[in-house]
Amino acid sequence: MDRRVFNRRMLLGGAAVATSVAVGPEAVGAREPGPVAPVEGGSGHGLAEPAKAVRTARTGGQIKKIKMFAERTRGGGMGYGFAKGKATTPGPLIELVEGDELHIEFQNTCDTAASLHVHGLDYAITDDGTRTTMSFVNPGEKRTYVWRTHAPGLRPDGTYREGSAGYWHYHDHVVGTEHGTGGIRKGLYGPLIVRRPGDVLPDKTYTVVFNETMINQMKNGGPDFEAIVGERVEFVMITHGDLYHTFHLHGHRWAHNRTGLISGPGDPSPVIDNRIVGPGDSFGFQVLAGEGVGPGAWMYHCHVQHHADRGMAGLFIVKEANGRIPKYMPHNHQDSGDNQRSRHHRHHGG
Amino acid sequence: MDRRVFNRRMLLGGAAVATSVAVGPEAVGAREPGPVAPVEGGSGHGLAEPAKAVRTARTGGQIKKIKMFAERTRGGGMGYGFAKGKATTPGPLIELVEGDELHIEFQNTCDTAASLHVHGLDYAITDDGTRTTMSFVNPGEKRTYVWRTHAPGLRPDGTYREGSAGYWHYHDHVVGTEHGTGGIRKGLYGPLIVRRPGDVLPDKTYTVVFNETMINQMKNGGPDFEAIVGERVEFVMITHGDLYHTFHLHGHRWAHNRTGLISGPGDPSPVIDNRIVGPGDSFGFQVLAGEGVGPGAWMYHCHVQHHADRGMAGLFIVKEANGRIPKYMPHNHQDSGDNQRSRHHRHHGG
Amino acid sequence: MDRRVFNRRMLLGGAAVATSVAVGPEAVGAREPGPVAPVEGGSGHGLAEPAKAVRTARTGGQIKKIKMFAERTRGGGMGYGFAKGKATTPGPLIELVEGDELHIEFQNTCDTAASLHVHGLDYAITDDGTRTTMSFVNPGEKRTYVWRTHAPGLRPDGTYREGSAGYWHYHDHVVGTEHGTGGIRKGLYGPLIVRRPGDVLPDKTYTVVFNETMINQMKNGGPDFEAIVGERVEFVMITHGDLYHTFHLHGHRWAHNRTGLISGPGDPSPVIDNRIVGPGDSFGFQVLAGEGVGPGAWMYHCHVQHHADRGMAGLFIVKEANGRIPKYMPHNHQDSGDNQRSRHHRHHGG
Repeated sequence: MDRRVFNRRMLLGGAAVATSVAVGPEAVGAREPGPVAPVEGGSGHGLAEPAKAVRTARTGGQIKKIKMFAERTRGGGMGYGFAKGKATTPGPLIELVEGDELHIEFQNTCDTAASLHVHGLDYAITDDGTRTTMSFVNPGEKRTYVWRTHAPGLRPDGTYREGSAGYWHYHDHVVGTEHGTGGIRKGLYGPLIVRRPGDVLPDKTYTVVFNETMINQMKNGGPDFEAIVGERVEFVMITHGDLYHTFHLHGHRWAHNRTGLISGPGDPSPVIDNRIVGPGDSFGFQVLAGEGVGPGAWMYHCHVQHHADRGMAGLFIVKEANGRIPKYMPHNHQDSGDNQRSRHHRHHGG
Repeated sequence: MDRRVFNRRMLLGGAAVATSVAVGPEAVGAREPGPVAPVEGGSGHGLAEPAKAVRTARTGGQIKKIKMFAERTRGGGMGYGFAKGKATTPGPLIELVEGDELHIEFQNTCDTAASLHVHGLDYAITDDGTRTTMSFVNPGEKRTYVWRTHAPGLRPDGTYREGSAGYWHYHDHVVGTEHGTGGIRKGLYGPLIVRRPGDVLPDKTYTVVFNETMINQMKNGGPDFEAIVGERVEFVMITHGDLYHTFHLHGHRWAHNRTGLISGPGDPSPVIDNRIVGPGDSFGFQVLAGEGVGPGAWMYHCHVQHHADRGMAGLFIVKEANGRIPKYMPHNHQDSGDNQRSRHHRHHGG
Repeated sequence: MDRRVFNRRMLLGGAAVATSVAVGPEAVGAREPGPVAPVEGGSGHGLAEPAKAVRTARTGGQIKKIKMFAERTRGGGMGYGFAKGKATTPGPLIELVEGDELHIEFQNTCDTAASLHVHGLDYAITDDGTRTTMSFVNPGEKRTYVWRTHAPGLRPDGTYREGSAGYWHYHDHVVGTEHGTGGIRKGLYGPLIVRRPGDVLPDKTYTVVFNETMINQMKNGGPDFEAIVGERVEFVMITHGDLYHTFHLHGHRWAHNRTGLISGPGDPSPVIDNRIVGPGDSFGFQVLAGEGVGPGAWMYHCHVQHHADRGMAGLFIVKEANGRIPKYMPHNHQDSGDNQRSRHHRHHGG
């Protein structure tokens, strides 16, 4: 078969049959699966081993309604949550499929004006989440933001319009300064994924936010993320603040394209394991945990040397099915000038 | 139809028929359409609504001759212009089609040596615009630079050669230091687009140059750019100086590929609305003003928070056909620590 | 022929016939061709001018065994070398083809623990080269690292797995700090290329490492690289340290994709001559020296202005077949505030 004619859809065995599936757990801690925006998938068919068939994103066109709260969090931070008192940093993952529309009843429980500004999606200027457009929310008040998405396709003028699919994010745009510098610094941000129908769904999604020299607001070592060998793990990587960073993951890599996955033999995208990012950037990718490398406590970190040395690092802990992690001993390292790594060792292997 | 076989050319209804069209106004102010390098387009055919058919770039192969002047400008700046006393910052837009050749009679009216160095194009080492190659121009003198472009195609060795098409730029390479640091800081730079025959032409092209914490040499708020809903607006984004930035546009997005437009269903390019850039970088894209989001005063800004807070922001003002801009009241925002935004409000909606 | 069906393989005249060929000289100085990892190529066939046919990468699947030494070098630096006393900075180029496996007997001759950490390849966690995984080497000791590569292809779940091909690099991960900051600063890094069978092979490969404001550890002007007009020259560009940079090359450009070469008419990759990079990033590309522009001393430099002014620049010296370099006079430039360029002029034209 000619390699340029080859595509992911064909790889997946033809048209997917939609079946309802659960969405994996969110990035940080054991939060409840988001009440909103589950992306139903279909199992691939025509494969020899149905147990291994991937789930794919459903067709779009749904109207979702959720609540979102901006809150003060412990330790002087701020965060978003789907329910009162449940704010997290990063905020909860929102997943949509191209064609979906999301209505967010946003309540600001903080003592300062706050907003929701989103990247990548379609919304009227009245939902921009900025001061100049008067689309923020005063303390104690609420309002509804409407975010829309669209599928790619032909325009009336014969050109091709891109779709909304992508690894996007949302954040406050008014706390502290006109650009939300104060709110972002404290944690008012979160991940948003728009999938294309047929996109491969992950087993788990983890969010990594580089914000100054913090990862997910942690100052001395980022969170550890866990998976079992072979699980399909998705990372959403977002950057905020004033600094540039380089995101590096050990033992795994991704394509520099829309999905982070090479779509087939004709895809010219570079495959990388290190990427420069700046504030407002976001991207994502999926890996099969330990694929070709096996289990282990795989480091991820900012590759800017003094950022890594200040603790911008964490572990992607890939366990064997029985829970073992080879060669992983929580306190076996010999620090030379860096004793900030203890956060890496919260999660112990079996 | 197989989606990988699909391409933009086919979308546009087959081979374009060349007809002469005007080039849109340039980026800053009401400058005259450039005397040079109009890119004639052809109307797409085979479409139901001819009024909406896009114009496309003509075939290349023309030899263009222009004059360019380096000048001191008001307020201690420097700039390039197509005519004496007409220097602007950024310099005037130069548009070419692959295969074109440009002869520039360059006159240096400044009191210091200056030059033209171009990115992306073909030129002999004697036209490099650098000190080491003696290709600069002393005060009051002139010389001709020849820039060439080429179409993609097969090489004699069977490999495929890239074409010249791209969003490029030109700048001085000798003022202040061997690398032109002094001239660039003062404004000696400008945009250059090389199109591929058949590329979709915009209705308007705007240039945005991030140079230190200035946009187009403006220190406290960048320029505003105007369009009517549905107009095809092209942005050329260039970075200069010492700093990295992230370019973000509200309510609109682009593909991270050659044209900034997704070329069809098989194009794996990421679609983004935020991009990290550093000095010497350039890229471009087209949007349909307000597509899917409607009219409004859409913010664009550097997403590096302290850059935005220092005024690296402007507005993309998308008006209704009757000139109205919903919810746009020039002085309605409540600044919190940032009172530098007045530059945004020079342009008032109807 | 439909343009999307077109591909590089077809350009090269069908299946390549494997013949053994030598690998070009390495980046810096007149080092011996590496004893390891020659990438045997095949000549393209079916072309009118066999003298111009490109060589292409062989099929993978070989097991290579090499030795690598970490050493102190003159002037307080550190470096890697394939033989004792032969350490260079950057370290020697390692070339593999997808499917190859590399066994590296690594000996640490330094007075501090050191390691080999590699980007992009497959290896067990026990070969990570980090302190936390106990995969470093104490002074005077040795150990074997095993690095593997894989071809792209279908996974059992029907998705497509990316291949290992890419412009990667290796570096120490333990000297100075847990992230190798001290070793990297002193020069413990080197280039690694994994090719896909059929990839076009260059005549020469040069490595450029931006590390703080040094190029290949040179502080006041980077190395010059030489070629004859028409030679296929490959650059591997790696960044280390704390700073971001923008790599710019005069008179030549590349595609922002896996190979740096446009793969055919359907390839949407941007063509650029300037790219922002940060620590840990790597990319590569090939140019035909002087293609479309002729011979000359073409500058390459960091386009961050104060980095360039501090000497982050060198020359790509493209000679005529007879050795002449037009307009190249080693001391003809008039420095204005920058007299650090003498390193550029070590190589004189005929």
